[in-house]
Formats: sequence, C-alpha cells, structure tokens
Amino acid sequence: MSENPTHDDESNSNQHTDPAHGADSSDDDFIVTPYAVSGEVDYEKLLERFGANTLTDAQIARFPDHPLLRRRTFYAGRDVDRYLEAAEVGDPHALVTGRGPSGPMHLGHVLPLYLAKRFQRETGATVYIPLSDDEKFLAKAQSFESIGKHTRDNLRDILAVGFDPERTRIVVDTADADVIYPIATRLAKHLTPATIEAVYGEQDSVGLQFYPAVQATHLLLPQLVAGRQPTLVPIAIDQDPHVRVCRDVAAKEALPVDKPGALLGRFLPSLEGPGKMSASDDAASIDLTDDPDTVAKTIRTHAYTGGQASLEAHRERGGDPSVDVPFQYLRFFFEADDAELERIAEQYRSGELLSGELKEIAIERITDFLGAHQRRRAELGDLEDELEPYRLTDGERKQALERAGVPSSPF
Amino acid sequence: MSENPTHDDESNSNQHTDPAHGADSSDDDFIVTPYAVSGEVDYEKLLERFGANTLTDAQIARFPDHPLLRRRTFYAGRDVDRYLEAAEVGDPHALVTGRGPSGPMHLGHVLPLYLAKRFQRETGATVYIPLSDDEKFLAKAQSFESIGKHTRDNLRDILAVGFDPERTRIVVDTADADVIYPIATRLAKHLTPATIEAVYGEQDSVGLQFYPAVQATHLLLPQLVAGRQPTLVPIAIDQDPHVRVCRDVAAKEALPVDKPGALLGRFLPSLEGPGKMSASDDAASIDLTDDPDTVAKTIRTHAYTGGQASLEAHRERGGDPSVDVPFQYLRFFFEADDAELERIAEQYRSGELLSGELKEIAIERITDFLGAHQRRRAELGDLEDELEPYRLTDGERKQALERAGVPSSPF
Repeated sequence: MSENPTHDDESNSNQHTDPAHGADSSDDDFIVTPYAVSGEVDYEKLLERFGANTLTDAQIARFPDHPLLRRRTFYAGRDVDRYLEAAEVGDPHALVTGRGPSGPMHLGHVLPLYLAKRFQRETGATVYIPLSDDEKFLAKAQSFESIGKHTRDNLRDILAVGFDPERTRIVVDTADADVIYPIATRLAKHLTPATIEAVYGEQDSVGLQFYPAVQATHLLLPQLVAGRQPTLVPIAIDQDPHVRVCRDVAAKEALPVDKPGALLGRFLPSLEGPGKMSASDDAASIDLTDDPDTVAKTIRTHAYTGGQASLEAHRERGGDPSVDVPFQYLRFFFEADDAELERIAEQYRSGELLSGELKEIAIERITDFLGAHQRRRAELGDLEDELEPYRLTDGERKQALERAGVPSSPF
Repeated sequence: MSENPTHDDESNSNQHTDPAHGADSSDDDFIVTPYAVSGEVDYEKLLERFGANTLTDAQIARFPDHPLLRRRTFYAGRDVDRYLEAAEVGDPHALVTGRGPSGPMHLGHVLPLYLAKRFQRETGATVYIPLSDDEKFLAKAQSFESIGKHTRDNLRDILAVGFDPERTRIVVDTADADVIYPIATRLAKHLTPATIEAVYGEQDSVGLQFYPAVQATHLLLPQLVAGRQPTLVPIAIDQDPHVRVCRDVAAKEALPVDKPGALLGRFLPSLEGPGKMSASDDAASIDLTDDPDTVAKTIRTHAYTGGQASLEAHRERGGDPSVDVPFQYLRFFFEADDAELERIAEQYRSGELLSGELKEIAIERITDFLGAHQRRRAELGDLEDELEPYRLTDGERKQALERAGVPSSPF
C-alpha cells in the first residue's frame, strides 16, 4: 500500500536493477528494489536488510486511527517516535507523499493521500506533495506534452482529496525548478554515480542519474522551507532506498535538517491477485474517474478472489479472505470497523458469503468513495486558481534556498 | 584564446579524463580534452580529430575585423558560413560565450567577451552569456556561498564590457533554473552515462554527470528563446567536445533549432610561457581589478620572454616574439595595427628592442585597457538594477520552454 514519494510503485521498463549491483539484494529468495520486486516477500527480513524497525503497538496507538495502520499495512518505519512526539505536543511536523504523473491516477495511488489528509486533520501535519514530471518524462516513452497532460489531470485528483491549503504545498518539478534544481544541485555534489548504481541499478540517461538528488530535495523540502522538523515519508517498503539515499545525503551535506523518517508499507495487491500492486498501462485497474458501472464491471471481471471454483465447493470449504482482493480493499481502507470486517471475513471463511457477494460489498464501498471524490473533483474551478493557495510562496522559496546554502539570485 | 561557453579553460582537479576513455584520444603524441591538455598540440591534426574546418581567408574577411581572427588565434570552426550569411544580410544570429564563476576574472577571461561585443556592435549579434555557478559548485572545493560571491563579482566585469542590453541576455544557472532545468531535462533524456564518460571521463558526482545537459541548454538558448538562427560559440579548441555533445543532442531530440556552430581558438599562453593558459589559483595572472602598479609588477616579474639571457646576447642574436608572452598579448588583442605589430616584432628580432622594453609596451596597453574597463565597472550601480535589462523576460522564458516542448506550468 502507499506510494513512494515520487515514483509509481510500478516496475519501470526504462530502468532495471541488476541484482548483482543492487544494494538490497541478498542470498534470500526474493528481491525488492525500487524498480523490481520478485519472489515471495518476507516483510520482516526486509526490515533487517533495510535497517528499519517494526512499528510497536504503542507507536500505532499514537498515530491517528486509520485502518492502514491499525491493520499493519504500514508495519514499519524509521524515526517514527520523533514524528509522533512533535505531532502530540503540536510542534511542526510534516509528511511527504508524492506522485509520478505518467498516467491517470488509480485507486491505489490516492489512498495514501487520504491517509495524509487524515493525519493533517488530526494533528495539523504539513503535507508536501511533489509531482515528479521530470522523472516520468525521463523514465517513460512519453513526450513532455503527454506528461504535462497527466500532471494537470493528476493535480485535479490531488486537489479533490481536500487538503488544508494552509498546511499543504504542492510542487511540480519543472514548474518549481527555481527552488528544486539549485537545492538538488547542492545535494548532488557528493552523490556519486557508484551510489546511484548500487541503489537503483544502471540508468539509461544522465537525467535519471541526477534524479535521486531531486527526490532527496522533495523529502527535505518541508524542513528547508519551514525549519527543522520531523518529516515522515509514507511509502511502500520497496521505495525505502529513496529515503535512505536522502538520509545519507542530508547527513553528508551538513544541512540544517533532520534526516527524514519513513512509514513503510506492504504492497497493495493488484486487482489480479496477491503481489505487488501494478500500475502498468495494460493491467486492469480502478481509475479515479471510473463511473459506478465501470467500477462494478472491472471488479466483477478482474478482481482475484479467494473463493472456491464452484458454489458447492465454496459452501463446503469457504473462501480465503487473506488472498481475496475485494476483501483486501475493505481491510486496507474501505471498512474501518474492525468488528464488521471480522464479520465479513468469518462469513466468507464459512462459505456463507459468496465471492460474488463479497465483490458487491467492495463495489458499493468503492463506488461511494469514488462518488464523493468525483463530486469534489467536479466542483473544482480553473486549475491555476485552485492551485494558487497550495503553491510555495516567494518567501518560502527564498527560505528554502537560503537554508540549503544556495546563493541568492543576483537578479 | 577565448573561453569555452561555461567552463574555465583551466584543468579541473575534481575531474579527469582517462585517455583510454577519451573520445579525443588518439595515437598522436598530444592529448586535448575539455579537462586535460598535454603534449605539443598540433592544431591541424586536432581539426581532423574533431572534424572541424580551418577558417578560409574569405571567411575571416567576412567576420568583423579583429586581431583575434585576422591573426588566426581563432583559426577554425563549424557551420561558420551560415552564421556569416545571417550576419551579412541582417538576419538573426547569436553568440554564446559564458563564464564559470569560480574566482575573479582574469584578463584572458574577458577578451572573448570584448570580441563578442565587437561582433554585436558590427552585425547586431545577440549575445548570450551563461554563468555556470552550478557546475563550478559541483566541480570545485568551494561552498555555494563562495561561488555566489564570485558570480556577483564576475557579473560586474561582464556588465563593464558594455554589451547592448537589447541584444544581450545573461543567465545564471541557479537563478534561472526555472527555464534552464526543464530544458536540460528535455535534453538529458537520451544523453547516456556512456556518452558523458567517453567525452568527459568519469565524473565524481551525478551533478557533474547531468551538467552537460545544462551546458547544451546554454548553447541552444538563443534559438529556443527567439527562434531558429545561426549560433556561434567562440571557444578554445579543447572545449569543442561541449559543442559536439550539444550538436548531437539537438539532432537527436528533434528540437526546432539548428546545431550550434563553433569558432575554435588556439590556447592563450599563460604568463609563465607557451602552452595552455592557466587560470588555476596559484598561477600568476592579471586580474581585471589589478591597478597599474600591480599589472606592471606582475608582467615584469612573471611574464615569460623570448629574449636572450644577457643584454649582449640579446643585442647580438635578438629575441623570439613567437614565444614572448608580452608580444603575444599585443598580437592577440592589444595591438590592432598589423604594421605596428610587425615593426615591434622586427625590432625585437633584431635585438634593438629589449625584453624589458617590450614588457613596458605591453604593460602600457594592458593598463590602458584595464583602466577603461575599471572605470566602466566603477560606474555601475546596484547589481540587481544593472542586470535587469539583460535578464530573460517572462515572455522569453515562456517561448524557450514552449519551443523545448516543456509543458507549461500548471500554477
């Protein structure tokens, strides 16, 4: 679940990680890097590999209540306590959750944004939402024009989530290059090609080689704009290397910032079944703009179920909610009530609830959710006007450049 | 003579070119790459290697008259005819001549700018002057603050040259990142790490790996801002690979621009003697801010002469103007009259003119030149105000991004 700050969690055809070079490869029988996941993922072993910590019950209790945490889809983290302390006493604290605008946003892309909105509403977290149109242009066989269209479209979905403009900043790499590029250059000075290759594998262009410095900029931006504060980056665990690169760079460059923390999540299953959620263009998915009929048809046709092959077998042996995608959607996000979720699971396991019936429950919840999202999206006016209050102010830009040690413009 | 668009023509301690990897290495007994020059340079062989053409007498006659061309310090080029045709009929044509602001500007740094000013005055050339503060920060053991100070100081010297603000644009990479970075990203998509390594050698940081895309942006900027037009880049021949990279990129990306041309120069000798001009920090040099006494002392103490070891030997055998640095300064720039220059050379060769006397002639000319430069520099007001008319306008920025295919800002 959750997206990395600025990439999709899709595998990237223009980039590849050679396990022989991947810092995260090991002798285990699974591979998890930002651009490749294979094998049966052992989430605990991953934490050992990456050096992150399982969330304790106490930590989860201190976060705003949300099924994604309560049910441990987000199950681990880095420097989570510092964030929680700040959130509890009302000190500044921030989240960074981004978007790589290479296509329409799917259901899976927007759920982390709704989680961030919840955090914002409950503890006043500042939320930074970087859109990496540069990286998507570099990594995809798409023109900049096409990426630009997706950027505008995605921005409408992000705005529809309903963040508090006072506490939210949206940046687009090319449109905010005046602040992004000089800071990325500052961070790139000691980011070696060898480090990038070890973490991300060989890159096809010098643009992609430079991009991790831009990504590190995203993660430090809340602190560069508004001063040192705990920053949490909610991401799927395969994206953790981005955070580690940023933490290394931040420490090396002696900037007036703390290393950003991370909230690490398991993978959302794709509609077609367990495993890493796929956003690649040919996979079936639920778009945020899908109408109820389309959602119903997509789930009825494509959703992988944990049911048995025949009605008789199902009534007799029951279904397996742990691999059933409609059930997993309820568990991740759409059924907040633990008792109700357990009731559904129990009915499914007993064979009383059929796969088709479980699908209809999921369809109803998702359709309600999307209906509300789409209403807010439809109410948006001119994109430029709507975005204005979410934009970095001139003063914030100046502050960020100053804290990053970038010389002020001679112009 | 002349500078490359954005690097100093100094050797760069943070970067190195392995001849085994250098595209410009060969079996000849000299090496010329943007970051290393060694051996006795055969300027004709270099042209074969690089695939550039010697300037013909007819071409030189068509350029505005200047000692640097007439005496073939600039001796070769690429796509020179197209530039000359545009200049002759009054069609748009541009020059790009930059500065890497890592220290105070020396005499050798400013001469190409005065040449560009001459071209501008005579044929109305647009002159673009990019300052690569990003590259200097990345390549040097200096803070961004230090680079920022040099940038401001260098800008005063550039303004003191006296360009026509209507036809001149000064850009600073970090301060103009809003236009530079998205275009560089556009150009970086198919610029491979292998190409960069072949041309420049291994780089220490991903910032330096990306920088050639920024440099290519500089060379295309006149055309991206104001439409397709012949663009000439006056540079020392060791910097020609920058132009070649840009030409390749421009062709590959199908942008609405012509490949930039080049005007290729021999190396200015350092004060200490023949060879590549050094601007490294410990070499003696004439700063643009030196007062007459300092200039005199520097030349009297450090300038390599072609004179004989004793007065008697000099009177008998005469001096060698071809290696005499004070004479070479006169030849490059400070004695425009061919007959007068030949008279001085003849007197020197005959032993009539002593090395010390020749030095005094050079001191007088250089002091006069610097006096005028310093007067104009002193008359400048607030840097920001002075720069304003040389800045890319909002409309020009928009045009450049549009021609480069960068999506317009959603903000």
